[in-house]
Amino acid sequence: MAHAVSPLAPPTFPTLPPVKGVRLATASAGIRYQDRTDLLVAELAPGTTVGGVVTKSLTASAPVDMCKANIKGGKARVLVVNAGNANAFTGQKGITAVETTVSGATRLFGCKRHEVFVSSTGTIGVPLQAEKIVAVLPAAQSALKEDDWTAAAKAIMTTDTFAKAATRTATIDGVPVTINGICKGSGMIAPDMATMLAYIFTDAALEPAAVQTLITAGANKSFNCVTVDGDTSTSDTLLMFATGQAKHRFVSSAVDPRLTEFRVKLDDLLIDLAKQIARDGEGATKFVEIRLSGADNDSAARRIAMSIANSPLVKTAIAGEDANWGRIVAAVGKAGEKANRDRLAITIGGVIVARAGEAVAGYDEAPVTKHMKGQEILIEVDVGIGKGAATVWTCDLTHGYIDINGSYRT
Amino acid sequence: MAHAVSPLAPPTFPTLPPVKGVRLATASAGIRYQDRTDLLVAELAPGTTVGGVVTKSLTASAPVDMCKANIKGGKARVLVVNAGNANAFTGQKGITAVETTVSGATRLFGCKRHEVFVSSTGTIGVPLQAEKIVAVLPAAQSALKEDDWTAAAKAIMTTDTFAKAATRTATIDGVPVTINGICKGSGMIAPDMATMLAYIFTDAALEPAAVQTLITAGANKSFNCVTVDGDTSTSDTLLMFATGQAKHRFVSSAVDPRLTEFRVKLDDLLIDLAKQIARDGEGATKFVEIRLSGADNDSAARRIAMSIANSPLVKTAIAGEDANWGRIVAAVGKAGEKANRDRLAITIGGVIVARAGEAVAGYDEAPVTKHMKGQEILIEVDVGIGKGAATVWTCDLTHGYIDINGSYRT
Repeated sequence: MAHAVSPLAPPTFPTLPPVKGVRLATASAGIRYQDRTDLLVAELAPGTTVGGVVTKSLTASAPVDMCKANIKGGKARVLVVNAGNANAFTGQKGITAVETTVSGATRLFGCKRHEVFVSSTGTIGVPLQAEKIVAVLPAAQSALKEDDWTAAAKAIMTTDTFAKAATRTATIDGVPVTINGICKGSGMIAPDMATMLAYIFTDAALEPAAVQTLITAGANKSFNCVTVDGDTSTSDTLLMFATGQAKHRFVSSAVDPRLTEFRVKLDDLLIDLAKQIARDGEGATKFVEIRLSGADNDSAARRIAMSIANSPLVKTAIAGEDANWGRIVAAVGKAGEKANRDRLAITIGGVIVARAGEAVAGYDEAPVTKHMKGQEILIEVDVGIGKGAATVWTCDLTHGYIDINGSYRT
Repeated sequence: MAHAVSPLAPPTFPTLPPVKGVRLATASAGIRYQDRTDLLVAELAPGTTVGGVVTKSLTASAPVDMCKANIKGGKARVLVVNAGNANAFTGQKGITAVETTVSGATRLFGCKRHEVFVSSTGTIGVPLQAEKIVAVLPAAQSALKEDDWTAAAKAIMTTDTFAKAATRTATIDGVPVTINGICKGSGMIAPDMATMLAYIFTDAALEPAAVQTLITAGANKSFNCVTVDGDTSTSDTLLMFATGQAKHRFVSSAVDPRLTEFRVKLDDLLIDLAKQIARDGEGATKFVEIRLSGADNDSAARRIAMSIANSPLVKTAIAGEDANWGRIVAAVGKAGEKANRDRLAITIGGVIVARAGEAVAGYDEAPVTKHMKGQEILIEVDVGIGKGAATVWTCDLTHGYIDINGSYRT
């Protein structure tokens, strides 16, 4: 299970400040992993509002179903996340396991059932022994503290090779607020809203509807623009908690002009986290940014960009450091969105390699080949139809992906 | 470029009888490969009717555009196929190259432009030197003969590790007719109608509309049910030629009851060829059949089955001989078609492993693990909604795929 840290990992783990109204603890529940933490508990101050988006998978897990239902209530007091078992495709046992965890949390924290959010990540189809989680909850509660975000990010990892977190500050009404985010994800990454598990915490004071609007819009620009293998998880969950502990006046609408800076910083944080997931794509050796322009509209642009990002032939060519733009053409063609073959233009590493439907005359592959040998690959494609644009992120497809996924359960 | 023959290759190349009205020749035009044939010429008797389906790729190649236009005429006299260069994304040069080949063929064979069919397969984005094809056409014409289908199947190979062909006989009006087929394809296989290049020849006497109906219906049950990597080619072309040399009365409709046996045999041949393509999937070590049932309708079943067949996580698990049915659940969930998570049933190698939304109690992995170690993997999935069913074929995803595709152009 242990794999070397991705060569694309950020050099250091960021220092996350406390977020007023959030206390964290981690524990070793022994669900699947030995000798590591596998449980994260976050206590949220009374009054915390919540919004989120979950997978559109039609085989979503029991915890996802529960989060989806509880998001509607708009209030949150406790978050419990376990790694090692996804509690997905576990039938009635799965629902019971969620209820067991929720009951344990409500007893201990004196909150309502709809204020508890549970996530599970790991193997699919194995019943989750929720009593192991409940058993360690009291100790976790005693250990709650405002810092150590590193431990929190580590406790939710599965095949991740590095812990993922980001922080931003913004002002609302001149009052500084903090936004912290942690996430995990490395394979089965083609979120149909959000990727695997991601949690955003802020001390801003926001109406639940505002949180929901902000996080949905942010997800569309970040987690929904990243793919590792085109496989959508049964467990994808992105939740944002706003504790309301910052001293600005309560904000009730996402379009309130006072949120302008906050929105920019939130989106920036979400994109930061999403890129970290692509950087930890299973077996990744290269981080790939695909900028698509000239499409019929932005959705069409995203679909074409994703078609390129998910093409095994494009991804293996990148792994082989081969500027094989013919495969990019094929991936554009299969996306099913309008593209003008004879106006298509492709730029790799800033060098235009194809224009007006054919290779650029006298095109010198040398600078492009040099770019392909680097760790950060930039591919720009204009499909010559309209003004639709999108940017997506992915990684290459290497022997490492096969190694990791040919032996995940053994 | 040379890779070991797929372990899944059929033990022998089938013996194909002549088809009255078809003569074949191969040549070495030196388009890209050295020391091998790279050109196939088929001469078709006057009166030959034709039907076909081509890629739905929006970046289809110039030869594909031309075939699509000429199919409408319903008549064929010459087929010219080259390997090594796909003449795709080559702009106006690509159209000119097709015209050069067509002109050479019409001069030599004394036929009309719309009776010539040209296909090209190989690298995308490199201008095709059609004069090299035209230069060897006269020698090819002199060498035309009724047999040596092996040479024909070999001349159109690219990354294929074995030549692919199949033959069937049927009777129409009590008159025996022959159906021969050859095809190529190994990567960039997720045909959106037909896979790479496939040519069917029969001496049956059929109206063009009947040929078209038969081949479209057959493609939907065969080539459109095979995938290697989810990547749709710019060059997919499936053509069927009916020379009309058999002595039965001319058939003008595909639904004529006299074609009952012919249709069964044609579909059987197409499925045979399609399976051979999955067996030669780049890097394949296991042939995988996915039988999907219980879907809303047959199209939904096919989409779900393809979602499983294209999942890198399912394919790498199979390569790792891991009966990881949780990944099958996830692939069902991401397909976007109706599925009842709590009625889903999964059978691997004939052993039911999950039923009613969870693992079968006391399920013994041993016989399934044994099945996974074999070369022929059977996965049956019932999604518990309706009566829609589909069967698709694919192969596993291995280090071999990465090896082949990380270095295709070098």
